[in-house]
Amino acid sequence: MSDWFLKGEPVEQIVVSDRGFQYGDGLFETIAIRNGQARLWQYHMDRLTRGCAVLGIKMPSEAELSSGLEQALRQSQALLAYCVAKIIVSAGTGVRGYGRKMVDSPTILFGIFPAYPPPVESYHEGLAITLCKTRLASSSPVAGLKTLNRLEQVLARSEFVDTGEFEGLTMDADDNIICGTMSNVFFVTNNVISTPSLDRCGVEGVMRRHVIETSKEQGIDTFVQPLHLSQLENIDEVFLSNSQFGVMPVRSCADMRWSVGHTTRRVMSILAENGITECR
Amino acid sequence: MSDWFLKGEPVEQIVVSDRGFQYGDGLFETIAIRNGQARLWQYHMDRLTRGCAVLGIKMPSEAELSSGLEQALRQSQALLAYCVAKIIVSAGTGVRGYGRKMVDSPTILFGIFPAYPPPVESYHEGLAITLCKTRLASSSPVAGLKTLNRLEQVLARSEFVDTGEFEGLTMDADDNIICGTMSNVFFVTNNVISTPSLDRCGVEGVMRRHVIETSKEQGIDTFVQPLHLSQLENIDEVFLSNSQFGVMPVRSCADMRWSVGHTTRRVMSILAENGITECR
Repeated sequence: MSDWFLKGEPVEQIVVSDRGFQYGDGLFETIAIRNGQARLWQYHMDRLTRGCAVLGIKMPSEAELSSGLEQALRQSQALLAYCVAKIIVSAGTGVRGYGRKMVDSPTILFGIFPAYPPPVESYHEGLAITLCKTRLASSSPVAGLKTLNRLEQVLARSEFVDTGEFEGLTMDADDNIICGTMSNVFFVTNNVISTPSLDRCGVEGVMRRHVIETSKEQGIDTFVQPLHLSQLENIDEVFLSNSQFGVMPVRSCADMRWSVGHTTRRVMSILAENGITECR
Repeated sequence: MSDWFLKGEPVEQIVVSDRGFQYGDGLFETIAIRNGQARLWQYHMDRLTRGCAVLGIKMPSEAELSSGLEQALRQSQALLAYCVAKIIVSAGTGVRGYGRKMVDSPTILFGIFPAYPPPVESYHEGLAITLCKTRLASSSPVAGLKTLNRLEQVLARSEFVDTGEFEGLTMDADDNIICGTMSNVFFVTNNVISTPSLDRCGVEGVMRRHVIETSKEQGIDTFVQPLHLSQLENIDEVFLSNSQFGVMPVRSCADMRWSVGHTTRRVMSILAENGITECR
């Protein structure tokens, strides 16, 4: 059985002329499926809506996407209690060449894959991560969006594919920390949380949004602001967020060390209460 | 008959899991076929070799690429006297997720499409082009390369899909002119040619390289240097280069006007002598 579904049917291939393949002309969402439900669904829909607006693709209706996802889940052999769904919305086929009009009927693909919760120890002891050499381009017209143009993340993530680190931090050309290759990063100093702005590069994760919103609701000072590499050593706590694993403490990056502190534990506890069960 | 060929056979589809589709993890070349021959073949091979090195893809042998192209041309229904070939080299299928090892056996696709020479008047009178609102991201790790991540060009080119301009110039966030959406741009002042550096964004066209090299050989001062939008009005001549059309003069961009001058005509004449027959 195929991992991918198109219009309710298993599918293994797409046409070569699909603009998603030719130019990366499309978007995707990677959604945690927990007990058969799509977690943070509305946040995924919000980001996809923003992406479609920027790319000039008509946003599929939420009903179409949720029923397509349900059909795919029903046919998948993955364990629906704990798996991951990928929705790709591409500009589909059309005229050759970069230019195109607004896309009214994008190609919508649903992929369902097995997933496994990270080891519990990682949440207690924190992760060892690395600092990537690959820099993110600045002032990207698709900054913050999860488009099919992901070469920067491919290059950055491939740097440590052999060395066993869980994640790597990426910077812009000016040594500002931006995000991880597949996660967002938060810093804690004097119980105040900050996370880099993603209006010039990087991807705005749905779990990042959830952390920002719930932390503020719980009375923790939380800011979006730049952080330069030179400031990283003087941070009290560092943690990552991602739609699949929730929030995870970082204990080291290159030669820098941090402890798993009070604020990180508090954020994890808030998330656990909100149903991000990995953070329990 | 399909426009696309894989391993010598017509093909209409690729697997959904191809990293070219999932992440834009790959490269391409768009080659002018003239009288059955691939024009500027070695320059295309050089750029593809650079791209493969940056992306961590084993460069296919030149023999494999040229015999694959010949097989595709033989089976194509396009007019081999004048058509365009697109070679896509993608990272192919592999593990899910951004990270991967070096790709030893990339997916290689050959597409053959009809092409038509631009009207002769354009070469005499020059083109009307526009200035795009879409800005190119700076300090890209894949600057200069022709990767499958082409959303910037899609967005910029789509700005004027309805208005009939032939091309649009793109800038970085600091108002430096970088290139066209599908061409490179040259400026002439006091018979000196300059073209923007593409080490932070943009695509290094094969015809740009040909213009730089042949102009220098013919004793025309030719430099790679930045040009700010504010300097554009005071330029004597502007022309574009592209693998398909060669070199074309620009007569206007937004509210700026230039005449088709001596140096542009001289470059066109040099190119025509070198077999870029469109410039005759």
